[in-house]
Amino acid sequence: VKDLRVRWALEEAGFPYEATLIDAQDQLSDSYRRWQPFGQVPAYRDDEVEMFESGAIILYLATKSEALAPKDAAGRARVSTWVMAALNSIEPHAQNLIRFDDAHLDSSWATERRTQLATKLANRLAALSDWLGDGDFLEERFTAGDLIMTTVLRELVDCGALAQFAKLDEYRRRCEARPAFHRALEAQMEAFRETA
Amino acid sequence: VKDLRVRWALEEAGFPYEATLIDAQDQLSDSYRRWQPFGQVPAYRDDEVEMFESGAIILYLATKSEALAPKDAAGRARVSTWVMAALNSIEPHAQNLIRFDDAHLDSSWATERRTQLATKLANRLAALSDWLGDGDFLEERFTAGDLIMTTVLRELVDCGALAQFAKLDEYRRRCEARPAFHRALEAQMEAFRETA
Repeated sequence: VKDLRVRWALEEAGFPYEATLIDAQDQLSDSYRRWQPFGQVPAYRDDEVEMFESGAIILYLATKSEALAPKDAAGRARVSTWVMAALNSIEPHAQNLIRFDDAHLDSSWATERRTQLATKLANRLAALSDWLGDGDFLEERFTAGDLIMTTVLRELVDCGALAQFAKLDEYRRRCEARPAFHRALEAQMEAFRETA
Repeated sequence: VKDLRVRWALEEAGFPYEATLIDAQDQLSDSYRRWQPFGQVPAYRDDEVEMFESGAIILYLATKSEALAPKDAAGRARVSTWVMAALNSIEPHAQNLIRFDDAHLDSSWATERRTQLATKLANRLAALSDWLGDGDFLEERFTAGDLIMTTVLRELVDCGALAQFAKLDEYRRRCEARPAFHRALEAQMEAFRETA
């Protein structure tokens, strides 16, 4: 669930926050739809803004905290670039493969199609791995770009797509080892336990 | 091709620009990959920044021109929200349907699957149409959010998915009627004519 992205960004920034979990009925309600027209989570508001889309929320938080992005225009442009790249150049291919596997299709067509989807994704991951090289992060320091990219790479652990990209998997683990990520994950699980 | 998005934003802002078209060989080159790791277009640079991903480029341009976004944090957050919503909550569903149709599959499974994809997309478009209501734009004025949303809705004209959403189609036409859009489209076609 994509609230983890926002929780993680808030934890990196050290901003206190309050999370309200909503149920399927809330998601359909007119009042929630005026906040989030598609009825999805997460949505965000503070004293200044009311918004949705986890990527947009993270970019907004990044304007408020140097823990998430450098202050200069050049550095911010890189962060915005990587947030978009994670969501638009990697995640759609990741989701295509994951959903295909979830459908459990069994035919020669399905085998061929899976190979196509896996190859497309692998090409993107290879390019990302080339960019990363031996670096710790996508740019010189950890930013909101690494945060979103890590949450996208996490989706790929189960389907094995990361297995052939050792550097990307190390990169993912490096980002997930951050204390703010652990606090975010723990807060997310705690919220679910309370609801269950 | 997604350079139209960037051209349109530059035209709205009234920023002079120079476009360099690249061929398939350039896209694979190491020098281009250092600028755009996935070898895609567009990529952008000016005196201050070097970046890629059309959505990120548009958000950067929006920080430089009030023609693309209001100056206040609340207004900017809305623009960023709608740019992300267009790219992440509408376009993936649009692309799923378009690619499925392109594959020209013919079986009872394919018919059922197409209905699923079309329904998912229609649900998103219905929510978007509800949000728009009788308004001219997604917020009180035209912004970079409308610009990106329009380029996404344009993709859907041929497959007929907009036919049942008259208000969205009027909205798309309203945005496409802007002089800056025509200048961008003309500049894009001119560039292709020169290359051909």
